[in-house]
Amino acid sequence: MSEYSPLPVPPMSIRFDPAAGTLSPEGPTLTRRMSDLEGLFRDRAAWEQAVADGDPVVYSVVSSQVPEVDRELPQSITTIQPGATGGELWMTKGHQHPNHQGEIYLGISGRGGLLMFDGAETRWVEMTPGTIGYMPPGWAHRSINIGSEPYSFLAVYPGGAGHDYGWVLEHGMGLRVLAATDDNTAANGNTGTDTGVEFVAYSGD
Amino acid sequence: MSEYSPLPVPPMSIRFDPAAGTLSPEGPTLTRRMSDLEGLFRDRAAWEQAVADGDPVVYSVVSSQVPEVDRELPQSITTIQPGATGGELWMTKGHQHPNHQGEIYLGISGRGGLLMFDGAETRWVEMTPGTIGYMPPGWAHRSINIGSEPYSFLAVYPGGAGHDYGWVLEHGMGLRVLAATDDNTAANGNTGTDTGVEFVAYSGD
Repeated sequence: MSEYSPLPVPPMSIRFDPAAGTLSPEGPTLTRRMSDLEGLFRDRAAWEQAVADGDPVVYSVVSSQVPEVDRELPQSITTIQPGATGGELWMTKGHQHPNHQGEIYLGISGRGGLLMFDGAETRWVEMTPGTIGYMPPGWAHRSINIGSEPYSFLAVYPGGAGHDYGWVLEHGMGLRVLAATDDNTAANGNTGTDTGVEFVAYSGD
Repeated sequence: MSEYSPLPVPPMSIRFDPAAGTLSPEGPTLTRRMSDLEGLFRDRAAWEQAVADGDPVVYSVVSSQVPEVDRELPQSITTIQPGATGGELWMTKGHQHPNHQGEIYLGISGRGGLLMFDGAETRWVEMTPGTIGYMPPGWAHRSINIGSEPYSFLAVYPGGAGHDYGWVLEHGMGLRVLAATDDNTAANGNTGTDTGVEFVAYSGD
């Protein structure tokens, strides 16, 4: 199994292959199945059904060997599969940095969105290959696949920023992102969409 | 003139065009001419001659609008022109981060090298498009164009790391990077090279 580099971290050359979505040499890989996303989808029954129907992989995160340690600057590639559950497009759990620090995402392939929420305002950046989405310190962030192909992006983030997933369970993200269909509430397939998105407020949950 | 964003920095979408070497919207651009590189080339007479012969632009750095402020994560694209002065390949001034924090460079176009020095050891990473060079905290770094075309890379770095250029004037970088020719000491053109590089120790200065 691949691991983070021991401290002190040596200078490194890391091969970034956007087409393959890989970093070489690679560090740990994180896989998030539907069952890992409890409490995040608006339609809990649809989420339970998706877990029962094979508990699919929603996204994976492959890291370089630069560790998540203060003063280091690790990188990772996240790939979100296309799909929707209860009409809500497949997404990452989302997190806030407990140690507020900025982060960037660089779109690599597919079409996605970057949702940011500071507890009061919500912002949306549409991500295509070559888009850098900038998350200032203090803005929680979640990524969403809005296309019909896997959506991948490179993340670069301060190693001491940390990941608070509970923040999003408590505060939400301001908006949810749905596939733009005639009747979103009926959509429950894993088909993704290229027809656009609709936003609904968390306050309606 | 383009400027950094005022604080607090809003969420941003930045268009990264590797082919053009641009970030849009763009922030300030820094231009370094030969005269800005005083004291850095081994052959001072050759450097003085190059300054007299039109004082060419050696490299430029175009930034995004994310400011160099603690907790932010700014980005920039550096483009180094091909050339050699006194046989020594054109390069950036090089700097140490007074507030030790890691940084990454992503090769975009051309062929370059990333020289790192922690005051005792020197490391070299050859940079081509798709190479991520990782600079751990505490390693001073300098970039060198080792090809015959402009060499460009995207940098992502913690905004509070700072830039100490005097550190390199005082400590050097351990090694100098020369064009690999039959007689480096005779080379003094702006032609660059695709024939490889040679390293010589600063201790011989």
